[in-house]
Amino acid sequence: MRYFAGIDIGGTNSKIGILNEEGDILKSTSIKTLSMEGVDITLERIWGTVKELLNSLEIEEDSLEGIGMGIPGPVIDQKIVAFFANFPWERNINIAEKMEKISGKKTKLDNDVNVIALGEANYGAGKNMKSSVTLALGTGIGGGIYIDGTLISGANGAGGEIGHSKVEKNGKLCGCGQKGCLEAYCSATGIAREAMSRLMINKSNMLYEKIGGDISKVEARDVFDCAKAGDKFSLDIVDYVGDYLALGIGNVLNIINPQGIILAGGVALAGDILIESIKRHLRAYALGVTIDDLEIHLGVLGNNAGIKGASALVK
Amino acid sequence: MRYFAGIDIGGTNSKIGILNEEGDILKSTSIKTLSMEGVDITLERIWGTVKELLNSLEIEEDSLEGIGMGIPGPVIDQKIVAFFANFPWERNINIAEKMEKISGKKTKLDNDVNVIALGEANYGAGKNMKSSVTLALGTGIGGGIYIDGTLISGANGAGGEIGHSKVEKNGKLCGCGQKGCLEAYCSATGIAREAMSRLMINKSNMLYEKIGGDISKVEARDVFDCAKAGDKFSLDIVDYVGDYLALGIGNVLNIINPQGIILAGGVALAGDILIESIKRHLRAYALGVTIDDLEIHLGVLGNNAGIKGASALVK
Repeated sequence: MRYFAGIDIGGTNSKIGILNEEGDILKSTSIKTLSMEGVDITLERIWGTVKELLNSLEIEEDSLEGIGMGIPGPVIDQKIVAFFANFPWERNINIAEKMEKISGKKTKLDNDVNVIALGEANYGAGKNMKSSVTLALGTGIGGGIYIDGTLISGANGAGGEIGHSKVEKNGKLCGCGQKGCLEAYCSATGIAREAMSRLMINKSNMLYEKIGGDISKVEARDVFDCAKAGDKFSLDIVDYVGDYLALGIGNVLNIINPQGIILAGGVALAGDILIESIKRHLRAYALGVTIDDLEIHLGVLGNNAGIKGASALVK
Repeated sequence: MRYFAGIDIGGTNSKIGILNEEGDILKSTSIKTLSMEGVDITLERIWGTVKELLNSLEIEEDSLEGIGMGIPGPVIDQKIVAFFANFPWERNINIAEKMEKISGKKTKLDNDVNVIALGEANYGAGKNMKSSVTLALGTGIGGGIYIDGTLISGANGAGGEIGHSKVEKNGKLCGCGQKGCLEAYCSATGIAREAMSRLMINKSNMLYEKIGGDISKVEARDVFDCAKAGDKFSLDIVDYVGDYLALGIGNVLNIINPQGIILAGGVALAGDILIESIKRHLRAYALGVTIDDLEIHLGVLGNNAGIKGASALVK
C-alpha cells in the first residue's frame, strides 16, 4: 500500500492527515501553525506530526510516498511560495525543497484554494468530470481550475483568482484595492455589505427583525435564513448575488469552458436558493454551448477538501 | 526528416502548407473550400492538394507524419466539430476520423483561433513563453489559450471565447445576441460602432473629414489612422477601446495568470498606440502579481499563423 500526507496550512491552525491512494483519510489532526517561530521550525513540527500519525497507524515511514501541502499564498511550479498571505516569512521560499530536506519525501505544494479544487475534482463533486472550476465562497472568493488532471496554477501562482475578476467596471470597492471584483459583490462580506446598505432605507422586513435592528450586525447567513423563510427583501438580495455570480461564472465558462462548476465555502451553504438564481441568470452571460451540458454542484468534501487535495498533489 | 501538413479551413478559401519540424513552411497554396460540395469531397480535395505539394517538394508520402487542421467552429477532443460556423455540414462530424480514413495519416484539429494561438505560442510571439493567451482582434474577437504545451480547448470546444466574456453588465448588444461582450466594444465592428455613435454629435474632427462626412462608412482603421496623426477625437476612442480591452484582458489574467498576452488580427495593427492604452488601464483590473512580469506582444505570424499552428497539433 502507498500512503500520502496531506497538509492544509492555515493562518492559525494547520490540518495534517495520512491518506491512502483512494484519498481516504486514515487519520488526521490539527496543530497550531505558530508561523512566528519561523519557516524551518514550523515545517519540522509538521513533519514530526506526520511521523506521529504514521506511528499510531502502524505505517512504516518508507510507505509514505510523498507530502502535499496547501498554502495561503501564490505558489509557483508547485514548489516556491511567492509570498505568504499572513505569515512573517520571506518571499519566494522554496518550501518543497525545505520539506524534502527535512523529511526525505517528495513534496509538492499549491495555493490552498487550488488544493481544495483538486480535492473536489479528484475525490468530491467533480470526481466524474474531466474539468471543473471550484469557487470557494467565504469571507472572500477564491477559485481553482482543474483541467485533465492538472491545476491551472498560473505563471505567478495567481491562476484561479476568479474572485478578483471584474463584474462591474469601476464598481464596488474590494478589499484588494481594485473596484468591481466578484468578491466585492458575492463573498459573505459582499453580501453583508449589500444587505446593510439596503437595510439603511428599508426596515419593514424579516431580516431587520432577525438582527434586532442592529444593521451593522447583519451577516450573509442571516440573509439566506430569511430568504429561505420567504422574506421578499432577502430573496431580492439573494437574486442580486446570484445574478453577479452568474456573470462571474459566465466569464469563466466563456474563457475556459469547463465541464462543471463546484461551489464550496460558507456562502454555498445557501444551496438551491442560490444555485437556482445562478442558473436563471447564466443564459444572459455564458454562450449556450458552454451551458447546455454544464454541471453545477455544491462541494461535498467540506473541511476535508484541503488535506484530500493536498495529498492528490503527490499521487 | 519529418514533415507535417498544416491546413487552415476558411469559409471561402482554405490554406494548405507542408512544414518541417521547426514549423518552417516549405510550400503552401490556397484552394477554394467549396463546402457546398459536402464534407467528404472537400476533405478529399484537400488531401489531393497535400499530395501535390509533397510531390512538387519531392517528399515521399511516407515522410508525412500527420495532418493538423484549423476549423471555423468548436472542436471537441481535437477530433469532432460540434458545428461549422458557415458550412452546410452536419453537427458533430468526426473530421479527424474521416481525414485519417482518406489519407492514412494521423489527423488532429482544433478551432481556427485556437490554432492561431498554438502557432504564435510555438513559432511566433510566444515561442519563449510557457503560457500565453492570444486574442485575435478582427471583425469579431476570438481567443486561444496555451498552457505548458497544450491548448485549453474546453469541454465543448468553446475554450478561449474571450470575445464573449462580459465587460459591461447589460452593456452593448453583441452579434451573439448577448449584451456587454468584449467583442461588442473592441472588435473592428465595435470600434466602428462607437466611432459612428460619437460622430453623430461631433463633426469637428479629423476623422469626420477623412471619411468625407459619410458616418456610416467609418472603419476601425480610420480611427487608428487619425489617432496616429494626433486627432484628439480619435485618440479618445482608442483609449476607450484600450480601457475595455484592459478589463477583458485583466479578467483573463486573474483567472489564468498566463506569462504573456499576444494580440493578433487587424485591430492589433493599431500597435503601440493601443498597447500603451491597455497597459495604462490594466492596473485597475488585474492583480499586480499577474502584471509585474507580464509580456504583451503583437502576433508575428500574420496569415501564416493558421497553417503553422495546425501543423503543431500533430508534432
